[in-house]
Amino acid sequence: MNDTKIWGLGLGPGDPDLITVKSLKILQQVDVIAYPAPLEGDSLTRTIAAPHLRGDQAEIAIRVPMVVERYPAQEIYDGAALEIADHVRQGKSVAILCEGDPFFYGSFMYLFSRLAEEFEIDVVPGVSSLAASAAGLGMPLSERNEVVTVIPAPLDEAEIEARLKATEVAAIMKVGRHFKKVKRVLDRLGLTVHAGYIERATMKEQRILDLTEMADDEAIYFSMIIVRRDGGDQR
Amino acid sequence: MNDTKIWGLGLGPGDPDLITVKSLKILQQVDVIAYPAPLEGDSLTRTIAAPHLRGDQAEIAIRVPMVVERYPAQEIYDGAALEIADHVRQGKSVAILCEGDPFFYGSFMYLFSRLAEEFEIDVVPGVSSLAASAAGLGMPLSERNEVVTVIPAPLDEAEIEARLKATEVAAIMKVGRHFKKVKRVLDRLGLTVHAGYIERATMKEQRILDLTEMADDEAIYFSMIIVRRDGGDQR
Repeated sequence: MNDTKIWGLGLGPGDPDLITVKSLKILQQVDVIAYPAPLEGDSLTRTIAAPHLRGDQAEIAIRVPMVVERYPAQEIYDGAALEIADHVRQGKSVAILCEGDPFFYGSFMYLFSRLAEEFEIDVVPGVSSLAASAAGLGMPLSERNEVVTVIPAPLDEAEIEARLKATEVAAIMKVGRHFKKVKRVLDRLGLTVHAGYIERATMKEQRILDLTEMADDEAIYFSMIIVRRDGGDQR
Repeated sequence: MNDTKIWGLGLGPGDPDLITVKSLKILQQVDVIAYPAPLEGDSLTRTIAAPHLRGDQAEIAIRVPMVVERYPAQEIYDGAALEIADHVRQGKSVAILCEGDPFFYGSFMYLFSRLAEEFEIDVVPGVSSLAASAAGLGMPLSERNEVVTVIPAPLDEAEIEARLKATEVAAIMKVGRHFKKVKRVLDRLGLTVHAGYIERATMKEQRILDLTEMADDEAIYFSMIIVRRDGGDQR
């Protein structure tokens, strides 16, 4: 390790073995670990790290109400950043644990933006849910000169449709309660047969479902739909 | 390991420590490794795996002329697929090594499409050049409900411009000799100040250059430009 005292540590998409050797080494060397957690109960992020932890590290659980996650609770991240800064000023090293990749739709950036001016932060990239979902579905994400568009499902129906029309490959994230809307767009564009749904990719609870058979309320938040305009024949 | 005999193994973007624990275990257990290589000289992909190799594994170097890579040499992949299939029919296990993530702009899919009908292939996702470049540049790729578009630089100027206009965040891949064209578009859209250039992310030779100071012929193929419409202030 160099003089860095703060890391943004990508842990990968869920399977604890999908952590990188680099993240594993840092995880086992730091004094303090910090991770997002719900208001009550276990942190999914910590669960991914758990098999690798030494057991004697200080822990900062950054508890954020799920409903607030979409409109981030600034004061919660302010407080967490202060707590992390305190540890570092006392000479401690801190790893901020991140599910997947730190810079791909995570809450890590709320801490990064608060701490990066004062401290050097090393961001260790991780396997993203995007890569994990493509692998799980057996659907190549991109080849040659294809354009890939990552589309968050909470966007407006018209916007999702416009984005889908303008890309060869799309990954629709955070499907959850937006499934019915997304499905309607895919049906309209004739893309449902070229789409695959996967949730909790690489976790024990991973499920792959047939879009044509899913109930309107069956999709969960930790899910992805991958659509290939060419249907996935990459021969 | 289960009964799988063929793996598509993501090795990560270049730093050998950015291999996952899962890929590392499989890499060290298989009988045969296969990897892309230039017609002459060392394989970049094999270089990433080298520090982890046992030393007694059979190797298949799939030699593809660089200029042909854009118009894949079907007969070369046909031959490589036959060779891999032969090993598997003899009871051997084979890992097809992939730089970055197997399903993100790699030549792996040419083998996957040829072998997946007869054999079960486990695709082990890896850290992509996308995640590595964002981390290296210290530029968050995506947050909240941002749309991310991955744009190969060989596309037409007009198409690149249209895609850039329609997205919050863009990752422009394989810049190389297309730099001048890409730069022209970024300048026209006033996005150059919000763009970062990185090449060989996480490798020893990694370089981050200032787009406004780069010569027209300075960019290399293994490079990426990340553009954030908001300039990267994610507070």
